[in-house]
Amino acid sequence: MKRPIVVINPNSSETVTEGLREALAGFMHHPGIAIECLTIAEGPPGVITQRHLDEAALNVGKVVEARPDAGAFVIACYSQPGLDLARSLTKVPVYGIQDAGALTALAAADSFGVIAVSPASIPRHLRTLRRLGVEQRLAGEVALSGNISVADSGHGEESFAGLLEAGEELKRMGAGAIVLGCAGMSGHRQRLEAALSLPVIDPTQAAVAVAFGDMVTRLP
Amino acid sequence: MKRPIVVINPNSSETVTEGLREALAGFMHHPGIAIECLTIAEGPPGVITQRHLDEAALNVGKVVEARPDAGAFVIACYSQPGLDLARSLTKVPVYGIQDAGALTALAAADSFGVIAVSPASIPRHLRTLRRLGVEQRLAGEVALSGNISVADSGHGEESFAGLLEAGEELKRMGAGAIVLGCAGMSGHRQRLEAALSLPVIDPTQAAVAVAFGDMVTRLP
Amino acid sequence: MKRPIVVINPNSSETVTEGLREALAGFMHHPGIAIECLTIAEGPPGVITQRHLDEAALNVGKVVEARPDAGAFVIACYSQPGLDLARSLTKVPVYGIQDAGALTALAAADSFGVIAVSPASIPRHLRTLRRLGVEQRLAGEVALSGNISVADSGHGEESFAGLLEAGEELKRMGAGAIVLGCAGMSGHRQRLEAALSLPVIDPTQAAVAVAFGDMVTRLP
Amino acid sequence: MKRPIVVINPNSSETVTEGLREALAGFMHHPGIAIECLTIAEGPPGVITQRHLDEAALNVGKVVEARPDAGAFVIACYSQPGLDLARSLTKVPVYGIQDAGALTALAAADSFGVIAVSPASIPRHLRTLRRLGVEQRLAGEVALSGNISVADSGHGEESFAGLLEAGEELKRMGAGAIVLGCAGMSGHRQRLEAALSLPVIDPTQAAVAVAFGDMVTRLP
Amino acid sequence: MKRPIVVINPNSSETVTEGLREALAGFMHHPGIAIECLTIAEGPPGVITQRHLDEAALNVGKVVEARPDAGAFVIACYSQPGLDLARSLTKVPVYGIQDAGALTALAAADSFGVIAVSPASIPRHLRTLRRLGVEQRLAGEVALSGNISVADSGHGEESFAGLLEAGEELKRMGAGAIVLGCAGMSGHRQRLEAALSLPVIDPTQAAVAVAFGDMVTRLP
Amino acid sequence: MKRPIVVINPNSSETVTEGLREALAGFMHHPGIAIECLTIAEGPPGVITQRHLDEAALNVGKVVEARPDAGAFVIACYSQPGLDLARSLTKVPVYGIQDAGALTALAAADSFGVIAVSPASIPRHLRTLRRLGVEQRLAGEVALSGNISVADSGHGEESFAGLLEAGEELKRMGAGAIVLGCAGMSGHRQRLEAALSLPVIDPTQAAVAVAFGDMVTRLP
Repeated sequence: MKRPIVVINPNSSETVTEGLREALAGFMHHPGIAIECLTIAEGPPGVITQRHLDEAALNVGKVVEARPDAGAFVIACYSQPGLDLARSLTKVPVYGIQDAGALTALAAADSFGVIAVSPASIPRHLRTLRRLGVEQRLAGEVALSGNISVADSGHGEESFAGLLEAGEELKRMGAGAIVLGCAGMSGHRQRLEAALSLPVIDPTQAAVAVAFGDMVTRLP
Repeated sequence: MKRPIVVINPNSSETVTEGLREALAGFMHHPGIAIECLTIAEGPPGVITQRHLDEAALNVGKVVEARPDAGAFVIACYSQPGLDLARSLTKVPVYGIQDAGALTALAAADSFGVIAVSPASIPRHLRTLRRLGVEQRLAGEVALSGNISVADSGHGEESFAGLLEAGEELKRMGAGAIVLGCAGMSGHRQRLEAALSLPVIDPTQAAVAVAFGDMVTRLP
Repeated sequence: MKRPIVVINPNSSETVTEGLREALAGFMHHPGIAIECLTIAEGPPGVITQRHLDEAALNVGKVVEARPDAGAFVIACYSQPGLDLARSLTKVPVYGIQDAGALTALAAADSFGVIAVSPASIPRHLRTLRRLGVEQRLAGEVALSGNISVADSGHGEESFAGLLEAGEELKRMGAGAIVLGCAGMSGHRQRLEAALSLPVIDPTQAAVAVAFGDMVTRLP
Repeated sequence: MKRPIVVINPNSSETVTEGLREALAGFMHHPGIAIECLTIAEGPPGVITQRHLDEAALNVGKVVEARPDAGAFVIACYSQPGLDLARSLTKVPVYGIQDAGALTALAAADSFGVIAVSPASIPRHLRTLRRLGVEQRLAGEVALSGNISVADSGHGEESFAGLLEAGEELKRMGAGAIVLGCAGMSGHRQRLEAALSLPVIDPTQAAVAVAFGDMVTRLP
Repeated sequence: MKRPIVVINPNSSETVTEGLREALAGFMHHPGIAIECLTIAEGPPGVITQRHLDEAALNVGKVVEARPDAGAFVIACYSQPGLDLARSLTKVPVYGIQDAGALTALAAADSFGVIAVSPASIPRHLRTLRRLGVEQRLAGEVALSGNISVADSGHGEESFAGLLEAGEELKRMGAGAIVLGCAGMSGHRQRLEAALSLPVIDPTQAAVAVAFGDMVTRLP
Repeated sequence: MKRPIVVINPNSSETVTEGLREALAGFMHHPGIAIECLTIAEGPPGVITQRHLDEAALNVGKVVEARPDAGAFVIACYSQPGLDLARSLTKVPVYGIQDAGALTALAAADSFGVIAVSPASIPRHLRTLRRLGVEQRLAGEVALSGNISVADSGHGEESFAGLLEAGEELKRMGAGAIVLGCAGMSGHRQRLEAALSLPVIDPTQAAVAVAFGDMVTRLP
């Protein structure tokens, strides 16, 4: 029986979940490993406020309990709601995408920069990096200017221009790799990488890579 | 054209390279991605001394120059000889297995312990962790007792008993995950994980997972 | 109008809340400042699991919204559920008792030790200390042996013996002050201090001291 | 018998001591706790040079020895002269205001900024923060422009304008709270807080809050 | 005109000063550089308490002012009394022996251990290491057992036995070099080094080496 | 028999080696200690690329093996090629000039800045500082503008102007001392120090001072 990697989008936007499926399509070819991207229908349209996050944590916990068949979970929101809860409820690995994104960046470069969707999320992200213990390797975190939603952050010229501007600032700050600080930006990853000449890490892809690697090496 | 992930074993032991192939077999099913494990024939039977490492660095550099077709390189020796050199010679990603192993452990747990083949390598590993910036999350590093070679470290009851003893000590020291501190121990990974009830990370598998994830998400 | 310091006990145990009132009695004399200790009736009898904490966060948020009259909030659970949420919902100061306890210890001594009610809470506490940025000054954290509840941890000979044993171990580990790692241990504070010849910090008292000082210096 | 909190102003300026009394008036209502602010008459008019500090240390030591009745001491100079000496001479708690100010800021916010009276004192303050172990949470320290004395730093439009300018710069640097880096600035605290929309910490108030909280919870 | 390196012994023991002269004899051959070891006659017989240190600071300041001819100063007491004061009074370099000893150890090894004369001085030394910023490289600090004075710590079998015991413990703790944590132990340096097979650093020699090197490279 | 301090210039430029001899002339007066500066003839004209460094490591190892008479080795290239190898091949001390330069700066000042010859070497230097454990005390590292070679960096008005510009920037960044980030800049040391009013450290002089001090205190 295949035990799927369950990728949880804690917001209610099917558009965002569909974007995750596209971002992860490369992994979906293996006969022994399934990847399933779920939308939490009762979640908010976007996980923006701290209340959204704290409610999302409980929703993530419900998904984990509802899926005893899962082989691993990935929490596909950069603020990683419910990471500790999920780990307390299951023995299979649970990955948060901020952790996986930052750590994958450090596997490729000496330091990294992060592009956030909004300035309000930056202090929250920094708390998580301190908890993870790698904040000394952060060159900086910069928010997209303008008012771009998670769902829009991976498509269109306006959001690409914002990503490029932020990425260039992070490069000047010394970043050796760029982490996309949101689950919805993957559509711009390769174009941004070409424009910046720096590795660009999509954090959901990074987390799924770790989960996939862990599972694929256990198959009989 | 497939651009392979080239996994470099800097010692001359085909047995070790064959062990890498086994450890990585799970990744070798994708029609678009090849994984190639190379032995450096002119390397020493085992990379043990600092001289071995410094010579291995240049050998790794030669491989990188000889393989402009590669899509990524993994340096499959825990001391990561030639990591900086390889990165200076190619634009494709180069991963060291110590870095990838430690970072993958931190994606799954709050702290990690490392099992080294010999005590002499521990100070060297600590220098690398300081350079990477995550030494604060190291619960400890413990060497196998007895005199076990890299090639033998992944097979047989004697080496398993050593791994188990070291792993239990690291668990008492607070490790939330165990990194196998050598490219040859993967054969014992799952058994050790079951015995310790802790995630056990094989560093070569961890590095290839990152490389695989990076490449598979770029395929058209 | 007096704006009270609202001290939130996120568990449903009135015994624990009554213990908080006793621990804070010294502050309750000022004509201009009220201190109110609330029990969250819908909370669990004890906040023990990660799910308890994540549910408690939302409960704490409800209290904060229900009390626009408050001058400050103190979250009287060592794991500080809802700290970020509460801060996002109000402009008045919100203090977590782990933060306040650790910081108050450092105002009096070079390093501190923490006595936890149970070993399971230690990794959680360490994550919070890393986030706060003072984990380097932690001499150690030790759990009470035996199976003592939060409500019992501040009364009786059995729990005192446990606190003394843990405190002596922390003193040997180099702690210059001891933080009681739970909201219910204050009953033993002075006796433990005398026995150890070290400052012993009750974290709820520490947090209320900061809140009280902040408010009392603003009175007209 | 009441054991007072003895607040030591190590300079000879009665104006500064009077300012301390005003800043601390809120605490002076409790029937069981006295707060006494002392001027060291043989001190310099302002503690500015390193020699002033080293002489102040011995003067502080004399006060500590002369006051065996004290329940706690607060050294009301941001450079904390005599902190180690005082602690070696008494068993009652001794608080330095830089330590207490920084730690209290961290109980309320993720990071803090400091406003110094003069640029010359900044390296000295940074050494103290490193010793305390929280320099990583410092967003920055900025000196008042112009030539404003300690005694003048808490009164008048000129010094307020300077504080505001410095505070705004610290806010841009990411400070989540502002610590007044001198014992004489408290007069501007609330006005600055309103102007900046950030918590502003007077360090003497912060230290007395900790001392008061410690004592008030020991009263029978 | 020769500008001497003035080595200040802040205690009144001529025996200790004579020991410094012996320890530094090797430097005293250069026609252009003089090394002068001074006893502070009004100092205590040994600098042991914090009061001794704070008084010593002012005495060191007096020496610095009395010697405008000096080319450099070395404060030959491991707790470095008066380091900041001396630096504020002169433009020539001032070196503290704890700083120089620790830093010289790190020029030779990955980590270091310190042997203290008495346990009471260890917390003081740790504060200085934190201020210097290298406490992460400290493997440990261990005090001589027994009751050995500074003057006796460099001579006789009893003190050697104590140094050896402490050194062996530090070696087990992972120290790659040993710093003698007192100005009086140099007489045992070479014997201890032979017994431990580790570099042993006398901190006064280390500080004078830095001062000597700085001056000798400026001679015309 | 005199056991010389062997100073190894890993590039083939006799001009650079001659510059080392001049920089070290002050040490060459002692009847019991010889200082010998060697050029590695088979090295590259300048050690610039990572390949140069990795080849230089092996060349340094050969020198160490060829000189069993040496009393100490100094690797006179700021990137310290072969430091670990040399230490594995000999029992006498081996010093790298980056380590010695940074540590000597910290013996004189709270923080330091580094002037690099080229921007490309800065990430490499930062990795070494992290490994050494003192990167927190780095105020910044700035490269010479223009295209100045190692051999030219210590002579002429153009390179002095570049050093001055970089030094002034580092002073604004808070550096309390400046380290010349290359073995060839010593010719400008004293002039730069006068212009900046800050201590300027030549790293080769710093390393030789430590080696000289170690040896001169062992002479009979």
